Amino acid sequence: MKCNLLFPVLITGLCACTPVQQRSSEQNDVNTPLHLIQPDYPVPYKVQSEQEVAATLRRVRDYLNEVTPAGLVDRNTGEDITDHTAADTAARMARGDFRIVSYEWGVVYAGMLRAGSVLEDTNFISYVSDRMRFIAEVIPVYRPLVEKGMPDAYSFRSMVSPRALDDAGSMCAAMIKSMQAGIDADLKPLVENFIDFIVNKQYRLDDGTLARRGPFPGTLWLDDLYMSVPALARMGSLTGDARYYDMAVRQVVQFSDRMFVHEKGLFMHGWVEGMDPHPHYLWGRANGWAIMAIVELLDVLPADHPGRDQVLGILRAHMEGLARWQSGQGFWHQLLDRNDSYLETSATAIFTYSIAKAVNEGWVDPHAMGPVAVLGWNAVTTRINNQGQVEGTCVGTGMAFDPAFYYFRP
Amino acid sequence: MKCNLLFPVLITGLCACTPVQQRSSEQNDVNTPLHLIQPDYPVPYKVQSEQEVAATLRRVRDYLNEVTPAGLVDRNTGEDITDHTAADTAARMARGDFRIVSYEWGVVYAGMLRAGSVLEDTNFISYVSDRMRFIAEVIPVYRPLVEKGMPDAYSFRSMVSPRALDDAGSMCAAMIKSMQAGIDADLKPLVENFIDFIVNKQYRLDDGTLARRGPFPGTLWLDDLYMSVPALARMGSLTGDARYYDMAVRQVVQFSDRMFVHEKGLFMHGWVEGMDPHPHYLWGRANGWAIMAIVELLDVLPADHPGRDQVLGILRAHMEGLARWQSGQGFWHQLLDRNDSYLETSATAIFTYSIAKAVNEGWVDPHAMGPVAVLGWNAVTTRINNQGQVEGTCVGTGMAFDPAFYYFRP
Amino acid sequence: MKCNLLFPVLITGLCACTPVQQRSSEQNDVNTPLHLIQPDYPVPYKVQSEQEVAATLRRVRDYLNEVTPAGLVDRNTGEDITDHTAADTAARMARGDFRIVSYEWGVVYAGMLRAGSVLEDTNFISYVSDRMRFIAEVIPVYRPLVEKGMPDAYSFRSMVSPRALDDAGSMCAAMIKSMQAGIDADLKPLVENFIDFIVNKQYRLDDGTLARRGPFPGTLWLDDLYMSVPALARMGSLTGDARYYDMAVRQVVQFSDRMFVHEKGLFMHGWVEGMDPHPHYLWGRANGWAIMAIVELLDVLPADHPGRDQVLGILRAHMEGLARWQSGQGFWHQLLDRNDSYLETSATAIFTYSIAKAVNEGWVDPHAMGPVAVLGWNAVTTRINNQGQVEGTCVGTGMAFDPAFYYFRP
Repeated sequence: MKCNLLFPVLITGLCACTPVQQRSSEQNDVNTPLHLIQPDYPVPYKVQSEQEVAATLRRVRDYLNEVTPAGLVDRNTGEDITDHTAADTAARMARGDFRIVSYEWGVVYAGMLRAGSVLEDTNFISYVSDRMRFIAEVIPVYRPLVEKGMPDAYSFRSMVSPRALDDAGSMCAAMIKSMQAGIDADLKPLVENFIDFIVNKQYRLDDGTLARRGPFPGTLWLDDLYMSVPALARMGSLTGDARYYDMAVRQVVQFSDRMFVHEKGLFMHGWVEGMDPHPHYLWGRANGWAIMAIVELLDVLPADHPGRDQVLGILRAHMEGLARWQSGQGFWHQLLDRNDSYLETSATAIFTYSIAKAVNEGWVDPHAMGPVAVLGWNAVTTRINNQGQVEGTCVGTGMAFDPAFYYFRP
Repeated sequence: MKCNLLFPVLITGLCACTPVQQRSSEQNDVNTPLHLIQPDYPVPYKVQSEQEVAATLRRVRDYLNEVTPAGLVDRNTGEDITDHTAADTAARMARGDFRIVSYEWGVVYAGMLRAGSVLEDTNFISYVSDRMRFIAEVIPVYRPLVEKGMPDAYSFRSMVSPRALDDAGSMCAAMIKSMQAGIDADLKPLVENFIDFIVNKQYRLDDGTLARRGPFPGTLWLDDLYMSVPALARMGSLTGDARYYDMAVRQVVQFSDRMFVHEKGLFMHGWVEGMDPHPHYLWGRANGWAIMAIVELLDVLPADHPGRDQVLGILRAHMEGLARWQSGQGFWHQLLDRNDSYLETSATAIFTYSIAKAVNEGWVDPHAMGPVAVLGWNAVTTRINNQGQVEGTCVGTGMAFDPAFYYFRP
Repeated sequence: MKCNLLFPVLITGLCACTPVQQRSSEQNDVNTPLHLIQPDYPVPYKVQSEQEVAATLRRVRDYLNEVTPAGLVDRNTGEDITDHTAADTAARMARGDFRIVSYEWGVVYAGMLRAGSVLEDTNFISYVSDRMRFIAEVIPVYRPLVEKGMPDAYSFRSMVSPRALDDAGSMCAAMIKSMQAGIDADLKPLVENFIDFIVNKQYRLDDGTLARRGPFPGTLWLDDLYMSVPALARMGSLTGDARYYDMAVRQVVQFSDRMFVHEKGLFMHGWVEGMDPHPHYLWGRANGWAIMAIVELLDVLPADHPGRDQVLGILRAHMEGLARWQSGQGFWHQLLDRNDSYLETSATAIFTYSIAKAVNEGWVDPHAMGPVAVLGWNAVTTRINNQGQVEGTCVGTGMAFDPAFYYFRP
């Protein structure tokens, strides 16, 4: 099974690969000739060149471009619907290998934009603009049908009337970034609809922490940090309205207060109001969502925002923990604190990006964290095949209160 | 090698399987179709029906009934001694695959009684009553011979003049339960003899904590919690004399003060007065004895006993720790904090029973602990073969101060 | 690949094997016949006799004696230079399998002296005296050439003008021990040169803690405790000058304050001034250097030295931690807290020696630590082949800030 959830991470992680200092492995102990022998590492053990990194990213982009078309088809005949101006109940979005309207693809768009900017390669940008223009064009047309209950209209429906943070946050952040990147598409109404959902409609605890009703009322899903905070932070930078920043900071702080396990430097996946003990499953990708949300927030949070230092402290504590749990192969484990769970690609990619970004921004110690990012990147590259497909990623996951659930996610 | 030490746990664990809520694995992330793929779990991943559980228990019972006869034989000729009223120095107890007078079988009897009661199946009860009547009949007859030094009379001797808690506590608790279940056998003199040993004769520390002289004077064996506390607690419920409860509570608290490793939520196997450091081997089954002893105590300890809250706190801390260390396969490891030690059946069974019982009694959070018990039960069932034999259990164990001793127990 | 870095440890560890009490494995639970079955241990599980230990040591000594000749050869022709009184720029030290002037061989000499003394076997002593006399003879002769820049003169140069603690500390300690053992060689000038380097010339932090400039300025290498403290301590015992003891104690305390990870009972390999977080790689052999340095210090530190109790406390905390992390096979792992890193021989040997010595001296609890040393020794013996070669030792190591570096050291 191939999955490209982590593609954006690969792309946006690009900048990780230059500033990291030469690795200390070359600081040989002069007294020890054996030292010069190159170990048989299972992953590359070097700093990759910009060219190598760029080539990897382009390979992934070309693959994704091919398998994620933007368009409408007739759900009965499978034929293309070329006229997007007339709503048709038989329409559905063309099916590629991945859904171009989804929280995963929100991350892909963000990554493509970043890669395009860093590499000055418009092919990355046009991947996004093609799809954003299509979405901006068809959603208003299909809105009336969706509101009347058009069947099997998931992709339309999630944008017209989002029901969960999974529908809203990631796509919303990508749309704002598209607007800020100058992509010419009428995304503002969609963004405002999403933000309204996040700010006003999503279920939350009494203190405002965003939550879900499942598996039990009052459940925090660590994943939801990414499904809300980047959108709020970007909305702050788009509008200049500090209340978005405030809300984003509050989510990070309030999740951390409840879910960060200090002695391990990692987050729990779930927290349930009133439950004791809370489930102690330190799932890799959810930790990825958390740290990438924090990175996204710091990326735009004004230097003088009163919450900035606290958020930075959480970032550092989390990265210190992550460094401690990285495996010898450079990957992290599916359950981060369990070295008998499998080595998981997507969490590794997200951590790699987040750490690299934090190093580049000067938010964390480059000597301590640079080598961690380099090793993580090298590990991820071993799982990108010649077709640009990424292997070894855990599927999207519900929440469970037993370890087997996480160990055996396909 | 097959061993049925854990049979009672399987039986008494029965009630675990109904109240646990539907597992959250079915709480799918609606945005993630991949999520619907059933992983290839190495153990069943579902809540078993009462019928399935009952069938498993009956299979084990039938096997045990066949291989643990009650009777006397002539040690020289091997012929049955049918007249139990005349003591004969040539007699020994009939040898099945397991010894019907032993601390292991004390647990088996307790489990059979519980299963008979829950399943309303008298075959479980008669397994116990047949053997208890036999024991109550022959021990008084053989007492004079044993007191005169009848050779090779271990099973008789351990009841006539117990020398260790292993002789006394587990069988004593099972006998009191038999009396309380209305089994018609004259068990009272045997019970009183055992209780007298526990209360008045067993070696102990200056503060009254029950201890052993080996491997060094002043050694606490965590196992001894089960070899004393259930008998004391049941004696409290039989007689209404609060001093038995007090002593049982004191043992639990005083062992915990010395042996509970808070940061891991687990108990050490051994503690030696004056030793520093104490041996840090967190052996699975001994943790099982501890938690099952606590469960047995809470089962009868009056709601207004002043020590109840403290015992409940110890139970919760231990169960929280156990949940943290359960493996992905649902088993626990031989050394609980070492995932390179083998997956051990008996500790898993004991934890499963204890957690299930605690969930059912409302002593711990059902959302947190129910899934742990369900997974544990499912794991154990994979080690019960068609003949009703249970596989993968560590043998009874001495105490050692090095890890190899525990890793390689057969 | 064979490496004999740990030979001295084997030798000096000899005394570990007698005073340790009989192992508790023989304290069987009398109620459990299965208990008597001998597990299939991957390493011997018994206390080896003095004869067995001595035979192992002699095998290693004989091997080393053969492959580490003392002499000069012409670097061009390879022919022996038998006249050592005339300096010759074409000369280099004869090349055996190991370098007889190196920090590793400093440890070998110390171990040989100890074995010779304990076993009353002059062959061990003459191994040292042969080489020390040679060194003491040729260094003064070649000093002028080295000072003028004689090329490729590493072994000469490291003694004439040491540039790193690796050059100085270990050889210096071995030389003082040789002097104290009555070996007739003019070692005093070499010792004084080394001590001058350690006390006055080595780079250090503002508070006097010995440090290196790489990989970053202000880096503490845990290894450096061994490369300084034993020499200082022995100089104290040689001269009676308390300032050497004071400096040795200060190094131990100041390294520990920065690098000892209390919750794990282990030391980090590296610590970099101003870095945050410090790299959390708990490398086995460096922990070995630390604990052996502490043992060497306590061996000669006067009973009334004001720092003695503090050093003893560090030793006990470290040994308590080491006991917790010993594997089931008796070895320790390359990264001590990572059971998926390989089982490493040299650290195991060093820990075994240090613990055995501490037990024999009464510095730690013999009941707690004796079995750890016995199991460690048994493990090490499985890696000494019939030729006396020791297998499975990690090469000398630089410092890195990622885990792959340590996992895959050859």
